[in-house]
Amino acid sequence: MDIDDLAQRVISGERRALARAITLVESGRPDHRAQAAKLLDAMPRDRQALRIGLSGTPGVGKSTFIESFGLMLTGQGLRVAVLAVDPSSARSGGSILGDKTRMDLLSRDPNAYIRPSPSQTHLGGVARRTREAVSLCEGAGFDVILIETVGVGQSETVVAEMADAFLLLLAPAGGDELQGVKRGIMEIADIIVINKADGDLKAAATRTCADYAGALRLLRKRPQDPAGFPKAMMVSALEDRGLSEVWDSLQELVAWRRAEGFWDRTRAEQAKYWFRQDVRAALLAQLDAPPVRAALEDLSGQVAAGDQDPAAAAQQFLAQLRDGLAGKS
Amino acid sequence: MDIDDLAQRVISGERRALARAITLVESGRPDHRAQAAKLLDAMPRDRQALRIGLSGTPGVGKSTFIESFGLMLTGQGLRVAVLAVDPSSARSGGSILGDKTRMDLLSRDPNAYIRPSPSQTHLGGVARRTREAVSLCEGAGFDVILIETVGVGQSETVVAEMADAFLLLLAPAGGDELQGVKRGIMEIADIIVINKADGDLKAAATRTCADYAGALRLLRKRPQDPAGFPKAMMVSALEDRGLSEVWDSLQELVAWRRAEGFWDRTRAEQAKYWFRQDVRAALLAQLDAPPVRAALEDLSGQVAAGDQDPAAAAQQFLAQLRDGLAGKS
Repeated sequence: MDIDDLAQRVISGERRALARAITLVESGRPDHRAQAAKLLDAMPRDRQALRIGLSGTPGVGKSTFIESFGLMLTGQGLRVAVLAVDPSSARSGGSILGDKTRMDLLSRDPNAYIRPSPSQTHLGGVARRTREAVSLCEGAGFDVILIETVGVGQSETVVAEMADAFLLLLAPAGGDELQGVKRGIMEIADIIVINKADGDLKAAATRTCADYAGALRLLRKRPQDPAGFPKAMMVSALEDRGLSEVWDSLQELVAWRRAEGFWDRTRAEQAKYWFRQDVRAALLAQLDAPPVRAALEDLSGQVAAGDQDPAAAAQQFLAQLRDGLAGKS
Repeated sequence: MDIDDLAQRVISGERRALARAITLVESGRPDHRAQAAKLLDAMPRDRQALRIGLSGTPGVGKSTFIESFGLMLTGQGLRVAVLAVDPSSARSGGSILGDKTRMDLLSRDPNAYIRPSPSQTHLGGVARRTREAVSLCEGAGFDVILIETVGVGQSETVVAEMADAFLLLLAPAGGDELQGVKRGIMEIADIIVINKADGDLKAAATRTCADYAGALRLLRKRPQDPAGFPKAMMVSALEDRGLSEVWDSLQELVAWRRAEGFWDRTRAEQAKYWFRQDVRAALLAQLDAPPVRAALEDLSGQVAAGDQDPAAAAQQFLAQLRDGLAGKS
């Protein structure tokens, strides 16, 4: 594969080249990894999209929100990419964005690009591949990149590590209490968006929005927040209301962060985070080579039989690895 | 250090040799690691203690329970070791067992040995060192090893990976509902022990015990459980009541698991688990050598400045590591 050529075609905005490039970074093969690194390094550094993380539990209307929000942006002449980090795809191979029919209009929009979550064996792998797909979309000239995830477990934290701003989507609460949103997620969110503020749910949405606005005021202010942030807002993705206000707020937030230096600082910290993650993953990936797995399996059997202590077997294995076991893969 | 000599002295039951051996396995120095592996491998395979994992949130009376339970066992002529996996020690360097005065009588008993949690930078490190201390205590001829942890986070899961049976200690509930015990912990517990079944709390303890007995019946039976397990029992560590019943139940459970082959099978699986953990930790420990850290720091700076993509920098770092960077440490 001619990586320089592929990089040029990605940068010039060829959709098929972008799809092929993302497939390359999603591969786990060692030779593909080296090509992927070269490709990523060839992306122009001066193209920066607005990367928006977006989380919300199933049923909250995430697809409808992304479709309406995305169409609003493409209507303004912006190019929009939608990517996903789906922790469930790590096990099932399934994907929250596998079915593009969920976003029928947006997926047919020439200014939008939708890519399902990569299938990987663990969340860390899913996240690293998505981070790389984000960089490729940025290199391809997209203006806004939406990175979707579901509101469970650790996936918000890793999506926050690749986003410039973070939206938490919630449904109107039935009762008069907060929806058990984990504190960790509250601390990541820049804007809490109460969706479905329409029809019978409008009153509940208004109350929920006020509840969260109150809760946010109780949280300690973060240095990277301008006055009034984080905030809670109501939208109806179905009726297309409130979406432009969310977009205006995002732009206000981001303009402030750029001016105050937080944008650059956060991106630099994020790059260091992914570098560390990549190094750790690459070290552990040595264990996946077939001859290495065979050696591991053999020692594991001895350990299970009680012939060796686990720590002694680990030392022996590491010595074998140093003596070139990995090189034979 | 003469490891063969140290091993013989541990096996012959010298307390000072055991303390020194545990200090050795707690060390993170590479040369100490090799010695520790040799020492662990020299332990006799035919000595097996009963390893009991024990969890409970602060305030539940864990120290009082361990002291009373331990003294009952030493009173029967058994030798008892108490170790701890304290996830908080990972950060603070503090330790839930640092203060032996919490178990004043047991700590002065010649048939008991109490060792605080190792301080390490993360839970994985704390747990691996404790697993190794368990093996040393076993080699030293202890009959029962109690491995204490606090009821938060992932620490129960790792303690379960080094225990033959698991006790969950709870206080009588104030209200009429369960104490928000995480399902994961419920699934690890073999016996739920309701402590403080004395004085004013006796009625509450009886109700709590019945609640948990009911909840346990709703859980799917595990293959490694004989009839009647997992179970809920009441004790008063303060008044020394119920402790022998817990001990009888543990012995019944363990005798069944030995006879049915679950004891050996579980120990084999645990050994394989620790082997995998040791291998991963050893691979990542390469990053701690000073010249390696310096190289990481340098590339990290380039990544933060935007001069290189994180994935490309990681590839470059791994190539440096292969070319002998690690050897220069």
